[in-house]
Amino acid sequence: MKRRDFLTAAGAGVAASAAVAMPAIAQSSPEVKWRCTSSFPKSLDTIFGAGELMARSVAEITDGKFQIQMFAAGEIVPGLQALDATQNKTVEMCHSASYYYVGKDPTFALGTAVPFGLNTRMMNAWFQFGSGLTLLNEFYKKYGVVMLPGGNTGGQMGGWFRKEIKSVADLKGLKMRIAGMGGQVLARLGVVPQQLAGGDIYPALEKGTIDAAEWVGPYDDEKLGLYKVAQYYYFPGWWEGCAALNFFVNDEKLAELPKAYRAALVTAAARANESMLASYDYKNPPAIENLVKAGTQLRRYPDDVMDAAYKESSALYEEIGAKNPDFKKIYEDMKAYRGPAYQWWQIAEYTYDNFMIRARSRG
Amino acid sequence: MKRRDFLTAAGAGVAASAAVAMPAIAQSSPEVKWRCTSSFPKSLDTIFGAGELMARSVAEITDGKFQIQMFAAGEIVPGLQALDATQNKTVEMCHSASYYYVGKDPTFALGTAVPFGLNTRMMNAWFQFGSGLTLLNEFYKKYGVVMLPGGNTGGQMGGWFRKEIKSVADLKGLKMRIAGMGGQVLARLGVVPQQLAGGDIYPALEKGTIDAAEWVGPYDDEKLGLYKVAQYYYFPGWWEGCAALNFFVNDEKLAELPKAYRAALVTAAARANESMLASYDYKNPPAIENLVKAGTQLRRYPDDVMDAAYKESSALYEEIGAKNPDFKKIYEDMKAYRGPAYQWWQIAEYTYDNFMIRARSRG
Repeated sequence: MKRRDFLTAAGAGVAASAAVAMPAIAQSSPEVKWRCTSSFPKSLDTIFGAGELMARSVAEITDGKFQIQMFAAGEIVPGLQALDATQNKTVEMCHSASYYYVGKDPTFALGTAVPFGLNTRMMNAWFQFGSGLTLLNEFYKKYGVVMLPGGNTGGQMGGWFRKEIKSVADLKGLKMRIAGMGGQVLARLGVVPQQLAGGDIYPALEKGTIDAAEWVGPYDDEKLGLYKVAQYYYFPGWWEGCAALNFFVNDEKLAELPKAYRAALVTAAARANESMLASYDYKNPPAIENLVKAGTQLRRYPDDVMDAAYKESSALYEEIGAKNPDFKKIYEDMKAYRGPAYQWWQIAEYTYDNFMIRARSRG
Repeated sequence: MKRRDFLTAAGAGVAASAAVAMPAIAQSSPEVKWRCTSSFPKSLDTIFGAGELMARSVAEITDGKFQIQMFAAGEIVPGLQALDATQNKTVEMCHSASYYYVGKDPTFALGTAVPFGLNTRMMNAWFQFGSGLTLLNEFYKKYGVVMLPGGNTGGQMGGWFRKEIKSVADLKGLKMRIAGMGGQVLARLGVVPQQLAGGDIYPALEKGTIDAAEWVGPYDDEKLGLYKVAQYYYFPGWWEGCAALNFFVNDEKLAELPKAYRAALVTAAARANESMLASYDYKNPPAIENLVKAGTQLRRYPDDVMDAAYKESSALYEEIGAKNPDFKKIYEDMKAYRGPAYQWWQIAEYTYDNFMIRARSRG
């Protein structure tokens, strides 16, 4: 197990392109202005705020000489075109979620979340000290970008339902707003997945055009007001045991940066990566209380749904892996860490949390 | 709930001393050389490595102009004098654990770990988005230092025992190497706490001078070889549900830094804070496997020990708080977040982990 860190991994991704694009700048502290397009609106302050923290940190530590201007989704390009805009140099970098691009290649899912993947701390460990970031950046090189972890939402919720789900049978024919691989797995269980932008979820759920919808977790979901039109709030969000956000940087643009600016960017991204998680962990607790006070009914997914989803997820990974060597290689590497990681997790972390949860409920 | 981040909090800690020590340096990128003394030996690569990552990051992003040289415990001052050396300007900063200084004031415990405190993610959330870092830095100001979070070990183990512990009665008269408040709580349950440096634990346990010892977790404990002289390895480490390490920076020295260097230091510390946790989360899983293969018997602390320890901890906090307003204020603030935080934790995170743990053991 070799130690790897952000800078090494980012450096590896840069090496090849450095030969293509020689640093054009001789000065060591030139004025550099970049644009970073986000896939998210400013109203998602936890996520968008991490992008802003990255940009502000870079500016502060370079005395304002390296400026990265953040743009919300739609200001330069629509949210889901952030990666393309970075690849084709419309912008130098973006803040996005890798799994938005599974249409290009399912391997993109592994940079953010796959059903029954790692939890948040494991994801960061696999990225930084396992081979996660190195393998993913080998893959992203095909798209001309280098990825730096750019925050995490923590474990998500499993969505809002207008009717209770008591078994797999209740999922049949249900129209649910859900994206990515979670949707593919649910489709195997009879759900009809729908793709809707954040702002369109509330009216669709209100009118009954859809029966269920997933978004993020209490803090973000409360803002969308989904509790007003769907009573049952399910957990856990088994398709997003964590969701890693990502900074994608055009690899030639990164190679053109003075070395110190590159280090500033990598270090600032790491700070943003940690800060977003802390933000969610602080804001979700009061939000779940508000939701419950407003009448939300919390429900745990029935065991048969969890088991069936787990089985179908494994089958899906087999099918994808048989056709896609990149997916197979990176998924298998993640899985090889996940087993021992959970074996350890259940000892100190899980039993501590278990006791604290019980102690709290006893008062 | 106001948003707070490292920089704001560090800035707050600096404001007062800035009036005392005017920046002596007119240039914006002067050569600055600092020394950072660690409370740890280089052999603790996870912890010491985070200090090195901080220093390396600062050097890289300032083009080598701001150099921080790391020193292992004992090279400049002994490990437990790191804070004093920072306060009296022998060094500009140190990498240490706040709870080593509970002899000065029990409030120091709250910067690292108290029995039945927050888990790791909650600690970071409380530091950064709650009032944790702000309140602690108001306290640390008395010692002329500003604290930046400097890594976390994650949830620790509950120590090595030569005999099985089946109930509180088995703790009576047991000589155990354990430091800080965990030791104070165990003393109330009949344990005789012993203070021993890391290197002295193995021979004491081998000779039977002590009956039990706690250190950190699988990765660090394996290196000490404790499994060779004590068979039973208990969990969870209820006195360290997480243990935050800390960078303490002399506040006048911090105020003298050019603004960009201060930002570099804060950002690099945040990166190190995250990286240490990822390092432990990657290295502990194979270590626990090795220990079990070598014959270690894993044991969960009996319920009556956990319950008695929880009760005695609460009583201890009452007693300390009655005499110490700093402790009371900061502990109460932490506790006010802990309740809602665990109420939320048990929903998405805990049930996800629960399913994944069961799925793994079913194969």
